[in-house]
Amino acid sequence: MFDFDFHNPTKILFGRGRETEIGKELQAAGIGKVLFLYGRDSIKKSGLWDRIVASLQQNNIAWVEHAGVVSNPVISHTRLGVDLAKKERVDAVLAVGGGSVLDEGKAIAVGALSDDDVWDYFVGKEVVAALPVFAVLTLAATGSEMNGNAVVTNEETRQKYNIASIHVYPRVSILNPELTCTVPPNYSAYGAVDAVAHVIEGYFTRRGGTHLQDRLVEGIIKTVIETNNIIMKAPADYAARAEFMWAATLALNGLTTAGLDEYSFPNHMIEHALSAIYNIAHGAGLAIVIPAWMKWYSPRCPERFQRFSLEIFGLHGVEAGIDALENWFAAIGAPTRLSHVGIKEHDIDQIADNAFGLATQWGIAGIYPRKAIAEILRFAV
Amino acid sequence: MFDFDFHNPTKILFGRGRETEIGKELQAAGIGKVLFLYGRDSIKKSGLWDRIVASLQQNNIAWVEHAGVVSNPVISHTRLGVDLAKKERVDAVLAVGGGSVLDEGKAIAVGALSDDDVWDYFVGKEVVAALPVFAVLTLAATGSEMNGNAVVTNEETRQKYNIASIHVYPRVSILNPELTCTVPPNYSAYGAVDAVAHVIEGYFTRRGGTHLQDRLVEGIIKTVIETNNIIMKAPADYAARAEFMWAATLALNGLTTAGLDEYSFPNHMIEHALSAIYNIAHGAGLAIVIPAWMKWYSPRCPERFQRFSLEIFGLHGVEAGIDALENWFAAIGAPTRLSHVGIKEHDIDQIADNAFGLATQWGIAGIYPRKAIAEILRFAV
Repeated sequence: MFDFDFHNPTKILFGRGRETEIGKELQAAGIGKVLFLYGRDSIKKSGLWDRIVASLQQNNIAWVEHAGVVSNPVISHTRLGVDLAKKERVDAVLAVGGGSVLDEGKAIAVGALSDDDVWDYFVGKEVVAALPVFAVLTLAATGSEMNGNAVVTNEETRQKYNIASIHVYPRVSILNPELTCTVPPNYSAYGAVDAVAHVIEGYFTRRGGTHLQDRLVEGIIKTVIETNNIIMKAPADYAARAEFMWAATLALNGLTTAGLDEYSFPNHMIEHALSAIYNIAHGAGLAIVIPAWMKWYSPRCPERFQRFSLEIFGLHGVEAGIDALENWFAAIGAPTRLSHVGIKEHDIDQIADNAFGLATQWGIAGIYPRKAIAEILRFAV
Repeated sequence: MFDFDFHNPTKILFGRGRETEIGKELQAAGIGKVLFLYGRDSIKKSGLWDRIVASLQQNNIAWVEHAGVVSNPVISHTRLGVDLAKKERVDAVLAVGGGSVLDEGKAIAVGALSDDDVWDYFVGKEVVAALPVFAVLTLAATGSEMNGNAVVTNEETRQKYNIASIHVYPRVSILNPELTCTVPPNYSAYGAVDAVAHVIEGYFTRRGGTHLQDRLVEGIIKTVIETNNIIMKAPADYAARAEFMWAATLALNGLTTAGLDEYSFPNHMIEHALSAIYNIAHGAGLAIVIPAWMKWYSPRCPERFQRFSLEIFGLHGVEAGIDALENWFAAIGAPTRLSHVGIKEHDIDQIADNAFGLATQWGIAGIYPRKAIAEILRFAV
């Protein structure tokens, strides 16, 4: 057990119909005007936009819209949001959508209080302030609703980088599992892969760790697998959607890594390169990277992988658990090989180059030189 | 999965020597003067008092002391603290000690901003404000370091009642496991019993629940048992003390009950009566009440108890798990029968009367009329 700080001030409102409370929450926080950020028109078709707007109106909250956030959100659209937030002098950012919308919202919140280009904060500048962020989540996956992380892609430089700061934890995040009942099967699967990815990074890479954190992680993985097996058959099953949604939140809110030492996020590092170059869904990229990374990494700590096999799948041996996880990814419809998303073996060096940039930024270039990253990717051919 | 709010804004600083950061944290929060609350002189003998005071001085934080908090803190001493906090116009309460010191600190923080008698808040008045509370924890047990609960005893009325409010979550809690290495074996055992008690209340009494919460609870119980088996043999084992300390915090910080419906705290209800009347240690009382309550309650949900037996102890059947838990309480030195603490069978009606007052306040008098409470207590004869 290593020294740590844990501070997660996000207030969660969880349950059916709770998005109608957003106006009241904003008013209670003294917010007069928000930048209302979302992705596509689907929130208008579903009626969510209407419910949000009604709640804002009832509580005298003014808003200006910034629509069009894309999956793997981009810095160009983020910069437009920053300009709009400044011009309209908003008091807060209201992000309504999945992890991409929340992440771009956090970035805009940082940029709105800065004279520097917002991308500077993704390549090393320290975040010292941000507008308050409020969120209504429509997709269970990234955990962004209860953490201080934001990932945005710079389309010019092909860098998918992140900021991490206490200043961008959402003040309030509203989680209504009903809103996720219409998520298509492939995106549900990608969300499940993402949640699993968030907890296994620390589980396998940590040097110091405890049974308590291991058990939290194992409980989350088993829950994600069980609930998504139900969701694949019955997409509108509220109980399964709800339990998965909360599991995905707990998967990356700081709990599972509190007290671990020297853990790292190599699967995310490599995946960020994949989606920065090929713009594939984050969870799809992770489903390709994780089994490959496990095959490469498992000889370094076979006893961890034996525990994983046994606790998660009731199986014995290192390979059994890796195979079972890969088979489960495939069973829920996620790609597990580079070829499944049209990436060729001769692209591997380019991906490794890109990922190595992140390895350097994250301080793990020693364990993950270009050569190692390419080796890992060859397991995914 | 039922609707819930989750909001736990406490900042945790966990690790060796971190109590020396308290002054810096107070200064960062804009605090100029604190009420420095503690129990006995042991914190002076151990050097903790000196380290706290040095940290306050280095950061120009003024303080006034209020020593003498007792185990099962009392309203008379709380009232003196309220008077002192008002007279000295402190900005915050700094509680240095175990759960008793933290709980009295929270009560003083409420009373200091009110013209009403502080006991009013324990018998129904709503808490609407409190001074900020900062804590340095010296005993792993109650979870008070990361929740909004405070339990205080009214010596005149023999009522051990509680307040629960978002306003009394500590702003910052410092958890240094080293400070718990000198806790005597019996109090370590009572802390372990208390942590187990906090999670099993919801685990067994909840109507709606999920595998995720069950797994969190089971992970915490297994960790508490494992670490305390080590602590009993090697009281200064840092790793075990650390893992237990964090497990005890997670046991009552809102996580394990988030999403449960209609759970209750019957073991705490009955124990509060025991310690209100006989002033026994809270964990000691719980070790007596829990096995008795389990024997009385288990026919209502045998499948829950079968799961408990299997997951925690690898045993089959309802009784096996209850017996194993009772035996473990005894093995670590906790009393498991009323006679072990000198309480006679003819005292049961008086205890039941007292507990029924809490049953009424907590809205569970229908399930726990006097007769039922007496029945439960007779299992502990």
